[in-house]
Amino acid sequence: MANQEVKLFGAWESPFSKRVEIALKLKGVKYEYVEENLSSKSPELLKYNPVHEKVPVLLHNGQPIVESLVILEYIDETWKSGPTILPEDPYERATSRFWANFLDNKLFVAVIKFFKSKGKEQDAIEEIGELLSILENELGDKKFFAGESIGLVDIAANIVALWLGVIEEGFGKELFTKETHPKLYKWSEEYLDCSIIKETLPPKADLLAHFFKAAHA
Amino acid sequence: MANQEVKLFGAWESPFSKRVEIALKLKGVKYEYVEENLSSKSPELLKYNPVHEKVPVLLHNGQPIVESLVILEYIDETWKSGPTILPEDPYERATSRFWANFLDNKLFVAVIKFFKSKGKEQDAIEEIGELLSILENELGDKKFFAGESIGLVDIAANIVALWLGVIEEGFGKELFTKETHPKLYKWSEEYLDCSIIKETLPPKADLLAHFFKAAHA
Repeated sequence: MANQEVKLFGAWESPFSKRVEIALKLKGVKYEYVEENLSSKSPELLKYNPVHEKVPVLLHNGQPIVESLVILEYIDETWKSGPTILPEDPYERATSRFWANFLDNKLFVAVIKFFKSKGKEQDAIEEIGELLSILENELGDKKFFAGESIGLVDIAANIVALWLGVIEEGFGKELFTKETHPKLYKWSEEYLDCSIIKETLPPKADLLAHFFKAAHA
Repeated sequence: MANQEVKLFGAWESPFSKRVEIALKLKGVKYEYVEENLSSKSPELLKYNPVHEKVPVLLHNGQPIVESLVILEYIDETWKSGPTILPEDPYERATSRFWANFLDNKLFVAVIKFFKSKGKEQDAIEEIGELLSILENELGDKKFFAGESIGLVDIAANIVALWLGVIEEGFGKELFTKETHPKLYKWSEEYLDCSIIKETLPPKADLLAHFFKAAHA
């Protein structure tokens, strides 16, 4: 298509931002990437996302799309070539949306709670463990959440596949292991081994240095 | 279609539950309604929504669909007859999803904060006012959020159209008036005047008695 302008405002350390990069690469969409400094956001980011002032923002032919899960659906509906991100069947679509929301509204919230839980880490660790068990149960013996190929829930679960391990190491606390959640752990290995995921997600050591540099300084 | 079982587990006082009833009626879908007592939920509700244990739950041919916005998209994708709930254009769809999420993640959260804000009501009132101004700005001079007919954002905004007025009256505080938000106020009048909305939403007096009966007892 002529005059296609696709621009992503993102941050390398954000699992939400990485969701959008993965989706664009899955679809084979060429895009310009603008790295945002989250402690000093650009006037463009604030202009395109005045309500939340957050990454990611996708700019497509001048129109901003905001919120990572909304952007993933937009990408799936706009670029029909390449693999689909959501399944076709309405019930399976609803199921995918439900679990993607679960990751943001339950798991991510529990992770934030853990970050803030000075002295009460154990409660937050148990809550995260229980939420991961619910996910493990949903995954069952499937390779990916919607079946044989990567879809909405897998991409939304970046935080499980990579960021949880960073948090574990940074805090020296066990959250998610092969022993506690074997199926989900196997899923994370499969997911991280996909070529698009490998080339898109940052090295664990870089995330560790970024989020815990103060603790290790 | 033969063997179509459509069953809604809802609660008459819930703006989320009412979203689903409105969508089913818009589409002309026949359904069985099960009224839940939110202080003593049925084993069926807990079975079909074990993660959140909340209404609404839509049961379609034995398959449970959960979370009101997920259900609205499911209804739109499953029953193609009748008016569409989301627009066709991907950018307009993304915009609708964004504002529906805004209502749940920003406005509803601020309303809950107001409920809990003993002594700090003024902060919560100001926040609600600012969020409504953002909505007012998005609405502009359109009749409904996506144009000439009711769609996802209007249905998601049940809480603005009816419940905010109940809360205002119950607390004796001004939140949303013709003077503070004229366009949004006009929208609420137009919305509440639609026949499906009128026959589906409960009388304000009933909500007032339900939510504030303790205060008036």
